[in-house]
Amino acid sequence: MTMEVHQVVPPPHKSTLQKLKARLKETFFPDDPLRQFKGQPLKRKLILGAQYVFPILQWGPKYNLKLFKSDLVSGLTIASLAIPQGISYAKLASLPPIVGLYSSFVPPLVYAVLGSSKDLAVGPVSIASLVLGSMLRQEVSPTAEPVLFLQLAFTSTLFAGLFQASLGILRLGFIIDFLSKAILIGFMAGAAIIVSLQQLKSLLGITHFSNQMGLVPVMSSVFHNIHEWSWQTILMGICFLMLLLLARHVSIRKPKLFWVSAGAPLASVIISTLLVFAIKAQNHGISVIGKLQQGINPPSWNMLLLHGSHLGLVMKTGIITGILSLTEGIAVGRTFAALRNYKVDGNKEMMAIGFMNVVGSFTSCYVTTGAFSRSAVNNNAGAKTAVSNVVMSVTVMVTLLFLMPLFQYTPNVVLGAIIVTAVIGLIDVPAACNIWRIDKFDFLVMLVAFLGVLFISVQGGLALAVGLSTFKILLQITRPKTVMLGKIPGTDIYRNLHQYKEAVRIPGFLILSIEAPINFANITYLNERTLRWIEEEEDSIKEQPSLRFLILEMSAVSAIDTSGISLFKELKTTLENKGLVLVNPLSEVIEKLKKADEANDFIRVDNLFLTVGEAVASLSSAMKGQSSTITEGLHTIVSCN
Amino acid sequence: MTMEVHQVVPPPHKSTLQKLKARLKETFFPDDPLRQFKGQPLKRKLILGAQYVFPILQWGPKYNLKLFKSDLVSGLTIASLAIPQGISYAKLASLPPIVGLYSSFVPPLVYAVLGSSKDLAVGPVSIASLVLGSMLRQEVSPTAEPVLFLQLAFTSTLFAGLFQASLGILRLGFIIDFLSKAILIGFMAGAAIIVSLQQLKSLLGITHFSNQMGLVPVMSSVFHNIHEWSWQTILMGICFLMLLLLARHVSIRKPKLFWVSAGAPLASVIISTLLVFAIKAQNHGISVIGKLQQGINPPSWNMLLLHGSHLGLVMKTGIITGILSLTEGIAVGRTFAALRNYKVDGNKEMMAIGFMNVVGSFTSCYVTTGAFSRSAVNNNAGAKTAVSNVVMSVTVMVTLLFLMPLFQYTPNVVLGAIIVTAVIGLIDVPAACNIWRIDKFDFLVMLVAFLGVLFISVQGGLALAVGLSTFKILLQITRPKTVMLGKIPGTDIYRNLHQYKEAVRIPGFLILSIEAPINFANITYLNERTLRWIEEEEDSIKEQPSLRFLILEMSAVSAIDTSGISLFKELKTTLENKGLVLVNPLSEVIEKLKKADEANDFIRVDNLFLTVGEAVASLSSAMKGQSSTITEGLHTIVSCN
Repeated sequence: MTMEVHQVVPPPHKSTLQKLKARLKETFFPDDPLRQFKGQPLKRKLILGAQYVFPILQWGPKYNLKLFKSDLVSGLTIASLAIPQGISYAKLASLPPIVGLYSSFVPPLVYAVLGSSKDLAVGPVSIASLVLGSMLRQEVSPTAEPVLFLQLAFTSTLFAGLFQASLGILRLGFIIDFLSKAILIGFMAGAAIIVSLQQLKSLLGITHFSNQMGLVPVMSSVFHNIHEWSWQTILMGICFLMLLLLARHVSIRKPKLFWVSAGAPLASVIISTLLVFAIKAQNHGISVIGKLQQGINPPSWNMLLLHGSHLGLVMKTGIITGILSLTEGIAVGRTFAALRNYKVDGNKEMMAIGFMNVVGSFTSCYVTTGAFSRSAVNNNAGAKTAVSNVVMSVTVMVTLLFLMPLFQYTPNVVLGAIIVTAVIGLIDVPAACNIWRIDKFDFLVMLVAFLGVLFISVQGGLALAVGLSTFKILLQITRPKTVMLGKIPGTDIYRNLHQYKEAVRIPGFLILSIEAPINFANITYLNERTLRWIEEEEDSIKEQPSLRFLILEMSAVSAIDTSGISLFKELKTTLENKGLVLVNPLSEVIEKLKKADEANDFIRVDNLFLTVGEAVASLSSAMKGQSSTITEGLHTIVSCN
Repeated sequence: MTMEVHQVVPPPHKSTLQKLKARLKETFFPDDPLRQFKGQPLKRKLILGAQYVFPILQWGPKYNLKLFKSDLVSGLTIASLAIPQGISYAKLASLPPIVGLYSSFVPPLVYAVLGSSKDLAVGPVSIASLVLGSMLRQEVSPTAEPVLFLQLAFTSTLFAGLFQASLGILRLGFIIDFLSKAILIGFMAGAAIIVSLQQLKSLLGITHFSNQMGLVPVMSSVFHNIHEWSWQTILMGICFLMLLLLARHVSIRKPKLFWVSAGAPLASVIISTLLVFAIKAQNHGISVIGKLQQGINPPSWNMLLLHGSHLGLVMKTGIITGILSLTEGIAVGRTFAALRNYKVDGNKEMMAIGFMNVVGSFTSCYVTTGAFSRSAVNNNAGAKTAVSNVVMSVTVMVTLLFLMPLFQYTPNVVLGAIIVTAVIGLIDVPAACNIWRIDKFDFLVMLVAFLGVLFISVQGGLALAVGLSTFKILLQITRPKTVMLGKIPGTDIYRNLHQYKEAVRIPGFLILSIEAPINFANITYLNERTLRWIEEEEDSIKEQPSLRFLILEMSAVSAIDTSGISLFKELKTTLENKGLVLVNPLSEVIEKLKKADEANDFIRVDNLFLTVGEAVASLSSAMKGQSSTITEGLHTIVSCN
């Protein structure tokens, strides 16, 4: 059985500096954003640079009337959603309703210039509003100190924006990848329930409501104040809730009728306002928004509190709402980009969203991002470019300037119903079932996020879930899989004996594949596990020829450190008269082994092979070729190892 | 070119419970400690069980006079080291010198019964002493409140023992693996310097010395108190330091003369004590130990403070000294076990060391473990079993009962010299150079540990270094390597094009190998990186036939989660009319892909192969076999994909 044997070679030499440069590039610039600039003349480079910073320069010149028609329709549609949502979400954040409208005016304009997504519709979102409100309420009461509360909200928005922009500038966008899909599904479901529970205040007409967010305190507050429940409010709430849910259902069943659910909130607001006005329901226990200020956003840079005792809270709130809104914005942007087959640059988007929030904090807006529901409507309504954001913004401006008095009689209960309808869509049961089917650990992470948000706190639940999923990654490294390989008959292919039932063991050889980088965190385990494999193998092959060689298939060992190298030295000692053979160590591994292997112990021609097949063939023939007493022959091989 | 194509099959079905059981077993019982019990009669099981808990039952019955002779010699040798070291280390921990001797009496006896190492010599160690003292001094002054300080030390020892034992019982021993060799080298060098700096107090005869540990405060304290320097002390210190270093040097050069360095500390103590006594040097500025209490360990269980304001500090101190001493003990045990080719069970050792410290805390001992220097001497002196520990313990007992008055005139400066000589051996410059040569990142970790210990604090430096090395692992997952494969001419082997210069690309195919589990932390990166590979490939092959297939070699993808599966769906969308082919997905990956792949998109016979060679051969022949217009043929393949 002669067979050509191919050598394992280390990669070409690179200096530490070159390696560091390559590593840094892969870490921070995996998408190689400068590639398009390469080899271009200076003028073109400047244009490309300006287009990179302001994507509007890219699509603006090609803009035409046909595109505008589509954008006008979609812009008006999302405006009809944005106005009631803006008012409702601001209330969710314990802010004056008008701030929600302000936040739908300036940020969309900024995003239209800087953003690279064509579908993202910008505005306040439920989860960031909820978290902002609940975190600030820990220290300041929005009713007792409304001005201070507003100041803190704007300052948090500034910090959120700065944090988001700096993540983008420092190219640390991968941080938001740690909020995995499983975490987001659990988190959003939990947050949807928390948000809906908060709406019980307006849906039941309760005046004394819990300040806390958790399931337990809210439910206890609801049932302790049962005497405050107002049947008029409840009746009205149920009617409009049914109406909104029905509209949503229709749009889900027939996507062409997207405008039914998109227009339903505004229609509900109009109908309920007229109704209240007609029957003077505000005198019959139905609470209304009340007088709203007219006019567009006043400046708010003088309201930013950059010192004082609340600075810590404000920074924490900014970072958490910043991360949450960024995650939603990026995820929404990516989803629609994938759907319509264009690319969204994550780090670029972070800068756009961040800058938008910084500008927002100067102009009386609170945290905004690309909202999921609004963007979906936008896309459905046929938006072609960010101009639909401009249309929405102008519509909101007109509302702010002229239509604010009309909202005076809008009942709070309808706003509550609008929020509940919006967030109920965030509970994604099929996705949860799918996760359960595919990966039980991911399901556990999801459950932790869900229950954590419900029973601990929004930040606590998220932190627990992120910690758990990071722990899983570490556990995969600490306890890497080792599998025994066998030969698939009639081939030279060696595969997992457990997975491929037809694969057979080769007597005298124990072939293990290690499926993780070898480092300080797992060498103890790998050492113990390998010895156990050997002992088990020796127990099972009592009658067959005894174990001669341990072949380690290293194709899946992507990296090694100094501790990892000591594993081989230890194995070598424990294996005694058995040979230790390495197969296909990858470039980094062979390089480091070579450097460490002063005694020339591991990486000699006779114990380093390119494939398992070649190793087995070569070692078997060497054994046979030697003296008839096999043991003697073995010792020769081993001693020259 | 016909070629047999082998199918990729999922592993045999296992229920979630079975998988969970297997996973738990691999996580907590990788060494399968119950294997030896399998299939044994009940009586044998009981004996094996008792031997497992008390290893003395294993070797005790076979003990004989010949073994005892060796153990007697080595026991006396380590006792001669243990007495001065005990006194010195207790002073390092700001404890009364006698406590150091107590700690060399009881714990070795406990370890002799419970421990599984034959070479470990038990006693107080420099680093744990240093940390214990420095942490407790943060809240309590050992001079102002000596009794409270002693109580806190014993209570910390109790917590250290409980923590160590519970790590062993809960089989969480892998936690200490996170203190990698690189960290330990940096940490020990830093600690050696810190410890040596502390000795400047006794070496220079300074009375007003800094309470802090860092390099800066100690040096400033030394030079601010230059008027306190005592030339008599300095002279004596230099002489004995030279003597001790010379003895150490002799033993390193000629291992047979191990007794020179082993006996030198006791010899120095005896000579210096006689000298002080003879010339009444205590009246000439040389400080001496002073009167020491006689008698063996008094009970100390009534001194344990399990409540009160210092509980937090005591628990923290216990956990940190517990981890540090455990690491030293386990590392030392493993080193000598590997040297003499027997096995030490990590979790078992943790229980032994933990229980030893719990007993110690009841009998006026502070934190002890297997000491490196002492165990090396023990091994050199020919110790055969744990009886050498018993011999040492008895010798210390005799000292405690009868010889204590002799130490009254022992000068502190000699104890300082003994400590400096002992810890200087912890600075391992060649190992540091070796790390630099093999792995630059490990070197950085080592440097962080070293500088952190020197300039921040012992715990701070350790925490930083552990954090950094964990971050590296996470980074390896977040930015996994993807390499382009090519065919090694004349074979069916595909390897890294960058590593194997002779490998060639196959026109029309882009073959990538992904070298990490695919999960939430890296799908964004992998998506971007893959698209970049494709774009680069398309740029470079303008004249050749265009890219038809992306082949992902998955042999190194050891795991996947739900997010990872979405990567394939996204890739499928972005690849448009190119085919996505998977090669050799491992058992977990194929299983999950199968579950998630409702549309039968990825794991069909025509885009799932066992080796890259088979994939290329099969897809090439399919392309050729189809209609002459290649593009048409391609579309057919793709559309049925």
